[in-house]
Amino acid sequence: MRIRVHVTPRKGVLDPQGQAVAHGLAQLGFDSVGEVRVGKVVDLVLDDLSSVEEALEQGRAMAQKLLANEVVEDFTVEVLD
Amino acid sequence: MRIRVHVTPRKGVLDPQGQAVAHGLAQLGFDSVGEVRVGKVVDLVLDDLSSVEEALEQGRAMAQKLLANEVVEDFTVEVLD
Repeated sequence: MRIRVHVTPRKGVLDPQGQAVAHGLAQLGFDSVGEVRVGKVVDLVLDDLSSVEEALEQGRAMAQKLLANEVVEDFTVEVLD
Repeated sequence: MRIRVHVTPRKGVLDPQGQAVAHGLAQLGFDSVGEVRVGKVVDLVLDDLSSVEEALEQGRAMAQKLLANEVVEDFTVEVLD
């Protein structure tokens, strides 16, 4: 089973990487670009798991313990296949 | 309109960050974790765009020019809302 964890900066938290990307895109002539937020996407293969619920639960536990810093980041977990 | 661009390491390309995450999760007792790949997710607000097609096209152009390094990274673009 494969799961995907998105880790993104929380609303209201400064995102310097996103600002740099927005600036870079504006320099390249992409005038329509407004706010940009940059986060991480973590794709994990989980072996020996039978149910979608179990995979989601493991994904949330991994995000809380290692992948995300919940003080400044939000995360979502989804099952890919 | 908001779009999301995923930038992930190409299949076959070494992903040291993913390996480090896999190792860290194993250390924490997550025994079911197999391969881990870490990429970026970029959420962008695009103003003054009317159609989904136009937004996707802009997203792909931005990925090719700035967000992704196509030698070692793949990207996908989706419209969020």
